[in-house]
Amino acid sequence: MAHGAVSKVVLAYSGGLDTSVILKWLQEEYGCEVVTFTADIGQGEELEPARAKAQAAGVKEIFIEDLREEFVRDFVFPMFRANTLYEGEYLLGTSIARPLIGKRLIEIAALTGADAIAHGATGKGNDQVRFELTAYALNPDIKIIAPWREWDLLSREKLMDYAAQHGIAVEMKRDGTKSPYSMDANLLHISYEGYDLEDPWVEPSQEMWRWSVAPEDAPDQATLIELTFEQGDCVAIDGTRLTPAAVLAELNRLGGANGIGRSDIVENRYVGMKSRGCYETPGGTILLKAHRAMESLTLDREAAHLKDELMPRYASLVYNGYWFAPERTMLQAAIDATQEVVNGVVRLRLYKGNVMVVGRKSEHNSLFDASIATFEEDAGAYDQADATGFIRLNALRLRVARRLRG
Amino acid sequence: MAHGAVSKVVLAYSGGLDTSVILKWLQEEYGCEVVTFTADIGQGEELEPARAKAQAAGVKEIFIEDLREEFVRDFVFPMFRANTLYEGEYLLGTSIARPLIGKRLIEIAALTGADAIAHGATGKGNDQVRFELTAYALNPDIKIIAPWREWDLLSREKLMDYAAQHGIAVEMKRDGTKSPYSMDANLLHISYEGYDLEDPWVEPSQEMWRWSVAPEDAPDQATLIELTFEQGDCVAIDGTRLTPAAVLAELNRLGGANGIGRSDIVENRYVGMKSRGCYETPGGTILLKAHRAMESLTLDREAAHLKDELMPRYASLVYNGYWFAPERTMLQAAIDATQEVVNGVVRLRLYKGNVMVVGRKSEHNSLFDASIATFEEDAGAYDQADATGFIRLNALRLRVARRLRG
Amino acid sequence: MAHGAVSKVVLAYSGGLDTSVILKWLQEEYGCEVVTFTADIGQGEELEPARAKAQAAGVKEIFIEDLREEFVRDFVFPMFRANTLYEGEYLLGTSIARPLIGKRLIEIAALTGADAIAHGATGKGNDQVRFELTAYALNPDIKIIAPWREWDLLSREKLMDYAAQHGIAVEMKRDGTKSPYSMDANLLHISYEGYDLEDPWVEPSQEMWRWSVAPEDAPDQATLIELTFEQGDCVAIDGTRLTPAAVLAELNRLGGANGIGRSDIVENRYVGMKSRGCYETPGGTILLKAHRAMESLTLDREAAHLKDELMPRYASLVYNGYWFAPERTMLQAAIDATQEVVNGVVRLRLYKGNVMVVGRKSEHNSLFDASIATFEEDAGAYDQADATGFIRLNALRLRVARRLRG
Amino acid sequence: MAHGAVSKVVLAYSGGLDTSVILKWLQEEYGCEVVTFTADIGQGEELEPARAKAQAAGVKEIFIEDLREEFVRDFVFPMFRANTLYEGEYLLGTSIARPLIGKRLIEIAALTGADAIAHGATGKGNDQVRFELTAYALNPDIKIIAPWREWDLLSREKLMDYAAQHGIAVEMKRDGTKSPYSMDANLLHISYEGYDLEDPWVEPSQEMWRWSVAPEDAPDQATLIELTFEQGDCVAIDGTRLTPAAVLAELNRLGGANGIGRSDIVENRYVGMKSRGCYETPGGTILLKAHRAMESLTLDREAAHLKDELMPRYASLVYNGYWFAPERTMLQAAIDATQEVVNGVVRLRLYKGNVMVVGRKSEHNSLFDASIATFEEDAGAYDQADATGFIRLNALRLRVARRLRG
Repeated sequence: MAHGAVSKVVLAYSGGLDTSVILKWLQEEYGCEVVTFTADIGQGEELEPARAKAQAAGVKEIFIEDLREEFVRDFVFPMFRANTLYEGEYLLGTSIARPLIGKRLIEIAALTGADAIAHGATGKGNDQVRFELTAYALNPDIKIIAPWREWDLLSREKLMDYAAQHGIAVEMKRDGTKSPYSMDANLLHISYEGYDLEDPWVEPSQEMWRWSVAPEDAPDQATLIELTFEQGDCVAIDGTRLTPAAVLAELNRLGGANGIGRSDIVENRYVGMKSRGCYETPGGTILLKAHRAMESLTLDREAAHLKDELMPRYASLVYNGYWFAPERTMLQAAIDATQEVVNGVVRLRLYKGNVMVVGRKSEHNSLFDASIATFEEDAGAYDQADATGFIRLNALRLRVARRLRG
Repeated sequence: MAHGAVSKVVLAYSGGLDTSVILKWLQEEYGCEVVTFTADIGQGEELEPARAKAQAAGVKEIFIEDLREEFVRDFVFPMFRANTLYEGEYLLGTSIARPLIGKRLIEIAALTGADAIAHGATGKGNDQVRFELTAYALNPDIKIIAPWREWDLLSREKLMDYAAQHGIAVEMKRDGTKSPYSMDANLLHISYEGYDLEDPWVEPSQEMWRWSVAPEDAPDQATLIELTFEQGDCVAIDGTRLTPAAVLAELNRLGGANGIGRSDIVENRYVGMKSRGCYETPGGTILLKAHRAMESLTLDREAAHLKDELMPRYASLVYNGYWFAPERTMLQAAIDATQEVVNGVVRLRLYKGNVMVVGRKSEHNSLFDASIATFEEDAGAYDQADATGFIRLNALRLRVARRLRG
Repeated sequence: MAHGAVSKVVLAYSGGLDTSVILKWLQEEYGCEVVTFTADIGQGEELEPARAKAQAAGVKEIFIEDLREEFVRDFVFPMFRANTLYEGEYLLGTSIARPLIGKRLIEIAALTGADAIAHGATGKGNDQVRFELTAYALNPDIKIIAPWREWDLLSREKLMDYAAQHGIAVEMKRDGTKSPYSMDANLLHISYEGYDLEDPWVEPSQEMWRWSVAPEDAPDQATLIELTFEQGDCVAIDGTRLTPAAVLAELNRLGGANGIGRSDIVENRYVGMKSRGCYETPGGTILLKAHRAMESLTLDREAAHLKDELMPRYASLVYNGYWFAPERTMLQAAIDATQEVVNGVVRLRLYKGNVMVVGRKSEHNSLFDASIATFEEDAGAYDQADATGFIRLNALRLRVARRLRG
Repeated sequence: MAHGAVSKVVLAYSGGLDTSVILKWLQEEYGCEVVTFTADIGQGEELEPARAKAQAAGVKEIFIEDLREEFVRDFVFPMFRANTLYEGEYLLGTSIARPLIGKRLIEIAALTGADAIAHGATGKGNDQVRFELTAYALNPDIKIIAPWREWDLLSREKLMDYAAQHGIAVEMKRDGTKSPYSMDANLLHISYEGYDLEDPWVEPSQEMWRWSVAPEDAPDQATLIELTFEQGDCVAIDGTRLTPAAVLAELNRLGGANGIGRSDIVENRYVGMKSRGCYETPGGTILLKAHRAMESLTLDREAAHLKDELMPRYASLVYNGYWFAPERTMLQAAIDATQEVVNGVVRLRLYKGNVMVVGRKSEHNSLFDASIATFEEDAGAYDQADATGFIRLNALRLRVARRLRG
């Protein structure tokens, strides 16, 4: 098998079976030095085992980094300012983490003098696109190795055989079980694909879900919380200021305990196929609802409507991997220009899968003017007669057109 | 008080206090003949009392009509094909009924030779706009009388005084209570405004809600249902074919019993102010979720994304009263052109406020191809190597741009 | 006639017949003090006569200001960054000047302690909306007097009579003629409405046009010019740096001499009617063409396409008077975020009404890579095999869909 | 060289050097039977030489078809209903012809039992994408051979050598010259790429242009024409009804003679690079201007604005080759829903490169109501007082927001 010449490659390395096989395969097939990069983005796994494994595989440059704050502050929060939902349902938990990983791969390649990066995403999915668009956008000359598109280890059996032949340990999950699903997790969500989900008529078993209790198993008592927003970002829960990552972690805890954030969808991948995915996004589900409520009080109508019209495109850009593209920057500029006034507090009731907004207030930015909206007499704040002219001029074009039709 | 000359006016008449006062006021102030029009659009009130009252007030031409099927078939269902949500939350229950009422007012004016119509909507709300844009769009020369914008009976006390002076009966609701809220109901929803809702920080009392139990009071056992779609419309529940109105009525029953469809929002009115509204839309909430799921399996990705981008504008058009406007027709044509393939069955779990999609299938129109999407070997259905070229050409512009920045 | 109490009003005053009558009428009807504001925005008329007339009418506070640089720098140039065209044809010459006038009216009201402003726009046009939306957006409590919507001087005769009765001089234009058209001029354009234009089948006479020669009368020799752009704005002509206003003035001279920039259209007014307008926008016509050409070389494809999709809405916002609205700010943020790289030189041929781009270059920002685009062998800059995968994945959804249809 | 097994292939065959080499190459490399398909879409070349050459090459099934009417009626006219311009400049002359060719290739494959199609487009351009997306959308199992992406004949010299070795005649153009440009022509346009155009700062020589005289060489006398539109399509010139193809041919003649329709642009290809193209589209340039003018009189404002907002996306779809995709169908449905009323006559002045609209009328569909728009007294057709309420309610949200900012 002939590959282009590569002298050093930075591998996105989890320490799991797949990327351990890839590490070995890169060393063997490319005969190059491998740098490993392992990030904590809140997936809930210990990272030190990855260090030990990398050392055991002869890796000299090992990067292990806690990126949780950067992840939430610079990726998750900006995305939530747009109320982003892909295809009406998906909160983009996996999508939004990929550009951060891709960016660090390129930065580490620069630091270590590597001429290539590698990742463990398959040739059928969106993640390969997200990693590689990011990489090319930040270093146009980088070489990218995507073993799943190159090798012939295309079934689980072949991969296990390769691992066995090369003495790569295949470990069970910490909890002693092995999920049959393909999963991905970070501070925003955990996802499940494959196995029995490949029939979209089949409901997944309750055992699949890992982050949240079933609504049926959630407390019988609702939990009331208050989220404080500043310039569109949630900065405090029940009055306690928290860092971005801590906000999301705490919302995950609250949401998971109340059966919130499960989603079971068929989605359209950028590479052209439909796929079934199940997601748990407890904190994100709460955050989306709360952010919309905060905006409902503080944001101008037309700005809000324009945001709603731009959102699906923004969501597609993030889903498709175009975080570091000029059109995403352009939309972000528009979105961020609206958030200065999105300040205040939203009160929520969490109960067995439901997130209910039950109050919202803003000391300095509420555009809700009870003196105008009131059903009682308003002391002249609003002149009802104005509505006549408003309607008549808005109707003018319709009237002229109807006259023609006789 | 001087008004333009009107000889006969068709009044949208509910039989309640407000429109009974208006009936009298029109007779007195305009000295004209009044025709009453009362429609059953599923608001859940008997109509015959309206007839008796109109007769008692000397009305000679009384129109009482059951418009429930037309309402759901020609207004609600087309709107749901677009997955319509105003400002991310509101299912447009009131908005979508107004053009139907407006249309019948104009048709009855033509039938009876009336030169004017009248309605009981205030000068602060959206409904006046919706009625009047509809009316002008269908009869450009119609005269429109909106008493709330003309008279001085602007408080509840003055209205009661006028009623007392003119012998107009002020009745309690059928259940003996009088809600302090301004309400509107039809087959799609019931809405609440005013009173303590005028402070957006205050949670409404549980007594306010009328159509649904609280999630806390819903059954501990989930209800599983299957909805059958044909060309984007729901035509059967659990395999039983139903008329459009019967579909919605049954979904309301199912949703209401399971605590589904409550919503508490601050919305932006077309006349320029923010207002607080609470809504119960049990059937509509189920229908929206199910329709999206049916589309997720059967609709092309780009058609679905384009629908998502157009939806907020479509929603604004419906909210603002532009049902009978060329731009709504234009968007409807685009939306309807996609729905021929939206056929199949969606399986849903209803539980304490949650609507969970747990399965979807389509005999002839499923675009989900497990042989392509599978995580197992796919026998050549998809060539992973294709992804390399796909990514590289999509990245080309980003790479060229980065090179410039050095 | 009863009016609300006004103590001092700032009037947008041209010194012409209409606003002179308004000045008098305000003094008489409102019994209030009038402050006059006259701006040079490049309309090509001397302002000192306005001072003399205002003084003669007893005005104590007279503001006469040269706003040409602010007009082009802060209004015209930002708008041209968006390649703005209303309804595919109109360069928004009148629309873009109104927010500046409105802003100064409000600022002068603050300076002078006035509680009202007044303008000479009629109740049928767009300008009243533009002035007043600006005014309300900057001072929500300002009183606005629009005499044309209040008084009964609705015909030219009545106006002349009033002028005669009150000793207001009716002067001819400087050139001794009196145009039968309603005209408006500033550095960006001159417009014509009314008179024989009210029949859209009638071609206006050549005498109407004032700023440009007819293409037939332009030189037989083309004029070649080079425009230099920095961050999307034109900063130099043929290598000579000029201020924004000087750029536009010079382009007007060049365009006018070459028969460029005439336009004859039917447009849709915000108040609901269609109207016929003729415009001369010599410099703007050149600028639009040149800016697009500069972007074609330097702007990313997707950013450019998104700009094109947003432009019609941006144009409507400017046309409708929403310059000082959050949604315009939001769009401007998106547009401006793209212009940092729009640097370089565009070469144009001006000839008898034509503006032809014949060259464009950018030292640091050209995304045109001849080594990739070449029809000759490209030494590996582009791998043609990549196209296969690109096409196959883009086609995947279409193939799956077709298979279903058999 | 190993290729997949192909038994019979339909080749898009012009009879020129490139496709003659491809014909031979397919026979040799694939050892398969070749069917040739040559279409007259108005490129202005005789087709019978292609027949003779195909026969000489041993082709048994030769398809030569006149598709001009289908081309204009089913592709060009629907596209012009949308006022389609790619990137503000390009009339999509090449793009719109490709789906028709692709469709016929697939239909002929079905007729002849071929399992593959082949075309002569390179791997760098848009045309390969357009051909192949069309082919896959109509036959998901078709095999596609794109020799330029497969073979090693990547320079002109190698191609000439191959031709010489295989006895393929290399002919000059009919006029004895050989253009150095890569050209494409059909009834809508002729395009030029490559050679000295690869430097975007260089102006092409006058000799390049073939369909139009230079504006400088056009008649000194303007030509006046009247175009009649029915439902958005041009059906007559100066009152003479013509078929779609005849309309376009005659407009090409008129435009070309008057120096109309030249365009010199840098455009963004779908495959990711910028390229320079020059185009002559005389008839299309006239048609676009006229259609917009016809719509300006007959189309509702909001429908027109929505069309303008959707157009750039529609243009990209056509440019990128998605004619037979659901999202194009969806947009076409929206566009066509507006055109029923686009009836009437537009009067144009053609003069040395300029297309000037000088009149438009519509017997039954003009929405221009002079009685409303007039600057004279309008006898109550429009109540100026309505504007006050219109402005005040549109300003309400801006005023509330400003109050907050103090």
